[in-house]
Amino acid sequence: MFQSYETRSEPEKGPARLSELRKAMQSEDLQGFIVPRADVHQGEYVADRDARLAWLTGFQGSAGFCVALADNAGVFIDGRYTVQVKTQVDLEHFTPVSWPSNQAGTWISEHAPEGAVIGFDPWLHTLSDVEKTVGIIAKAGQSLRPCRNLIDVIWHDQPGSPKVAAFAHPVEFSGESHSSKRARMAQELVAEGEDHAVITLPDSICWLLNIRGHDVSHNPVMQGLLILHKDGRVDLFADPDKLYDVHDHLGEQVICHSPDDFPACLADLKGVVRVDPASAPFAVASILEAAGAEISRNPDPCILPKAVKNKTELAGMRAAHLRDGAAMAEFLCWLSEEAPKGGLTEISVAQNLEGFRRATNALYDISFETISATGPHAPICHYRVSEDSNLPVELGQVLLVDSGGQYKDGTTDITRTIAVGEVGDDEKQCFTRVLQGMIALSRVRWPRGLSGRDLDPIARYPIWLAGHDFDHGTGHGVGAFLSVHEGPARIARISEVPLLPGMILSNEPGYYREGKFGIRIENLLIVQQAGDLPGADARDMLGFETLAYTPIDRNMIVVEMLSNDERDWLNAYHAKTFQLLHDQVSKKAAIWLEMACGSL
Amino acid sequence: MFQSYETRSEPEKGPARLSELRKAMQSEDLQGFIVPRADVHQGEYVADRDARLAWLTGFQGSAGFCVALADNAGVFIDGRYTVQVKTQVDLEHFTPVSWPSNQAGTWISEHAPEGAVIGFDPWLHTLSDVEKTVGIIAKAGQSLRPCRNLIDVIWHDQPGSPKVAAFAHPVEFSGESHSSKRARMAQELVAEGEDHAVITLPDSICWLLNIRGHDVSHNPVMQGLLILHKDGRVDLFADPDKLYDVHDHLGEQVICHSPDDFPACLADLKGVVRVDPASAPFAVASILEAAGAEISRNPDPCILPKAVKNKTELAGMRAAHLRDGAAMAEFLCWLSEEAPKGGLTEISVAQNLEGFRRATNALYDISFETISATGPHAPICHYRVSEDSNLPVELGQVLLVDSGGQYKDGTTDITRTIAVGEVGDDEKQCFTRVLQGMIALSRVRWPRGLSGRDLDPIARYPIWLAGHDFDHGTGHGVGAFLSVHEGPARIARISEVPLLPGMILSNEPGYYREGKFGIRIENLLIVQQAGDLPGADARDMLGFETLAYTPIDRNMIVVEMLSNDERDWLNAYHAKTFQLLHDQVSKKAAIWLEMACGSL
Repeated sequence: MFQSYETRSEPEKGPARLSELRKAMQSEDLQGFIVPRADVHQGEYVADRDARLAWLTGFQGSAGFCVALADNAGVFIDGRYTVQVKTQVDLEHFTPVSWPSNQAGTWISEHAPEGAVIGFDPWLHTLSDVEKTVGIIAKAGQSLRPCRNLIDVIWHDQPGSPKVAAFAHPVEFSGESHSSKRARMAQELVAEGEDHAVITLPDSICWLLNIRGHDVSHNPVMQGLLILHKDGRVDLFADPDKLYDVHDHLGEQVICHSPDDFPACLADLKGVVRVDPASAPFAVASILEAAGAEISRNPDPCILPKAVKNKTELAGMRAAHLRDGAAMAEFLCWLSEEAPKGGLTEISVAQNLEGFRRATNALYDISFETISATGPHAPICHYRVSEDSNLPVELGQVLLVDSGGQYKDGTTDITRTIAVGEVGDDEKQCFTRVLQGMIALSRVRWPRGLSGRDLDPIARYPIWLAGHDFDHGTGHGVGAFLSVHEGPARIARISEVPLLPGMILSNEPGYYREGKFGIRIENLLIVQQAGDLPGADARDMLGFETLAYTPIDRNMIVVEMLSNDERDWLNAYHAKTFQLLHDQVSKKAAIWLEMACGSL
Repeated sequence: MFQSYETRSEPEKGPARLSELRKAMQSEDLQGFIVPRADVHQGEYVADRDARLAWLTGFQGSAGFCVALADNAGVFIDGRYTVQVKTQVDLEHFTPVSWPSNQAGTWISEHAPEGAVIGFDPWLHTLSDVEKTVGIIAKAGQSLRPCRNLIDVIWHDQPGSPKVAAFAHPVEFSGESHSSKRARMAQELVAEGEDHAVITLPDSICWLLNIRGHDVSHNPVMQGLLILHKDGRVDLFADPDKLYDVHDHLGEQVICHSPDDFPACLADLKGVVRVDPASAPFAVASILEAAGAEISRNPDPCILPKAVKNKTELAGMRAAHLRDGAAMAEFLCWLSEEAPKGGLTEISVAQNLEGFRRATNALYDISFETISATGPHAPICHYRVSEDSNLPVELGQVLLVDSGGQYKDGTTDITRTIAVGEVGDDEKQCFTRVLQGMIALSRVRWPRGLSGRDLDPIARYPIWLAGHDFDHGTGHGVGAFLSVHEGPARIARISEVPLLPGMILSNEPGYYREGKFGIRIENLLIVQQAGDLPGADARDMLGFETLAYTPIDRNMIVVEMLSNDERDWLNAYHAKTFQLLHDQVSKKAAIWLEMACGSL
């Protein structure tokens, strides 16, 4: 199985490790050291050897950092993890700190002595993060000092770097050769007057070179570092063992080096070098500056082109969703039969769902750890079921299942919330409002130029009307057989990136009643030129194409709350779901599907 | 009457005046001169003596400017005026230029010779405007030179400055004494480390001192200039003739000076002086800098407190809206009887509406020139009917009437779109979508912290769904017996100012079919803490209270397009309209009102 359910956190080991770290700090003459969740590549998933924050503190979240001082250790976590952190760290030795309302710099200037020198690994922090912290603590006469990684010094059984063989992602899936992509990106450098670009994000590198790998869970990327030159050639830095199968695919314009050679090659660069301050390690800028190169602060050139999928990628995403929708239908059919009998648990639900996806014989990985959350667990937005937390799925409860698959032609991410037996009116009314928001966003068309921020309120409006809201974005970008969370566009209050045809975004409004129940409904959407409409003006408008077809639980819907337009949308959605899936599933699931997709 | 209908533009006089201006430029050794629509106070309305742009070019719009060069004269106008400008200026001598897509600076650098020196009146341009232009033309070796106003030099029969007596706006309407307001604003200066603030916006000055005047049409303000000190005292600069009736009201803490003394008093200021770069004339900053004062660039301190109305102002606004609603009901009743008979014109409609408002015996002025636009005139968003343009109101047409009153207790602004006889299905469907947007915004509640930008899409959603949109903001701030267009908050794509309880905003989505028909529905709203709601979560949410109660034409509505919630809102709105107004109007209007407010 791709998902494991063991309890990973070891809070009891934290204090001894913290005391080791403090000894190492002392021997380096440092008054503090920062341990981030991030690795060199700033991704959402890290390899085992890079799980330094979890090793030190026990905290398992996907973002955050620890600032260890001589007599204090702050664990910085965002709103998703305020509950979780308390069960995963030893609270006598570690102090949870809300972040980003508290910044590293302000906390250091308040808790570390005047003149304190705080160490950090310059490869694990971005240029902008370091600059922000330095700007704040300088006022307190404090400073940051780049140094070797002190966790690596004290972590004696630290795992090695991942060495899984990378493989080519063929043009039949990518739709564009890597030489064409390299030429396009090189043009972008020339247009900006740049000679080279340093690229450290694994999904950018894999997209650019049409390769994939398996260095971390659930994200089919190979970790590496890359320098793109204005003539379209690239230098790729990755363990030679990983590149054995892709040498021919990469060809002569892609020169492969050991990762150890990266600093020296950086130091050799002449002219103007593009560095993305939001993703490049501080060390990259330091080396370039010391070598006299001119730094151009500009985003990673692959970010926007990667987000705008081409026709081949869109066709692959549609095919992957059809396959995934059939697996979801089998799963929901099985659940409708098994759940009322009793005996299911959050883990058995997730395991069976993974089984149905595996049965497609096309599943490369799940796209993230399935959130299988019943009753009071569902309001914990990033709930990960473990053997310790595993709850039985009981009658009268609402079950939330957020999951997805990595297929070679595309990535899926879908959430359904299911009534187990008969559930309360309150649950149904809240579900119906979330559904109304999800339908409103599915139907919208808008004048080109707007960003996700401008669409976010449309999904929230029916939820706001009840005096409710949800504390996460409405949608995130999704990669094509790449990261399930992909920038730069989002549907969220903070997202100012204009939406462009070809972008893929999730549509996932929710509602969470703490300690009681949680609701989320999620489909992926493609941004597209809005279709012809009788009577429409000649305006350049965009709209969405729905990618995911999977029944939405009719038992959760208060039909009278829906407008005619909303009911029409839902009936058409279900009719299309049946039409697309009925001959892709087992006979039993087809019968269930017909019922689940009936008109309301 | 407050509104006149004569054709004001004199395009035929432009060429001779332009040639006079060029002579004056030559004698000052200038290669150009900028003539703005703005006066010293940067308001929407200007006094006759300040209508320099109209005098020179013939253009009558409420924003824009002319750059006169030796062989070219660009008239810069925004999207509202692209059609209008062509009929109001002599196109052989003046060239309309789209603005702000073309900036003064770029146009000058492209059209004026290298090294050109362009003159401008430093009292009529804001600090930020001048800095922006200078930054652009410097690259072409060109410069701006402050000089005397060359239009004033050549305009021999230029009217004098307005000298209408100001009057006190009593605490019964303002809700707070001017000494209390001055003390509050002074605290704000102290908090920012400032010693003085220069205030040049007439509505800020009138709000701060609780005075009103009549120096320009429709805006009940007295024009003047003011320096606020950090101890709460102020120096007021205004023609002594205007202050005769308010000396006692102003008291000893408000020292009155002639406007001629303003530059000398500015030059005497010591310490840190707050200057609003968006409204203060360039001359203010020049004088302060020359005198060695330190300039603090900060918004006019009155802008936000003025926008957040207190309880007394809100009560006044409600009373004014009740009175205005009764006049609107009389008008709509009259219109429903007269329009089908034929013989009405756009002008007679506007005149009769003004008559019904005057009959309240409380009308101080109309709050802007009534837009009375039938058939093809309504898509011209800022249409002003004149004797030349006046169209008959005909059966089968849609009539748009956007109007408002200035009452001593409050300001109104309301738009209704009325079917004259039976109109087409297309008109009705478009009207219904605009109504749905207007209802959606009326009903919304949202988490505190959002700005108008975040609510704007909610009003547009039903219109977007049909492939339509409208090219103006959804709403603007409104003053309390002050300017009908008041900052800083708006409901528009560009508005990032968080909405606060007590702000008053218009809600006016529309739809315009060029050459055919135009639709707009507008009510004013108060931002308020959202009321209790059974089942709501404990979130800090805001909502709107509707201020305006006036029937919405049922003959324009396609009832089947409305959701139950929308129909419920409309029926409740009409029931409350009838309840509030039926005993405030004539017997005839009460009978009409009962019919117009019946349930759908």
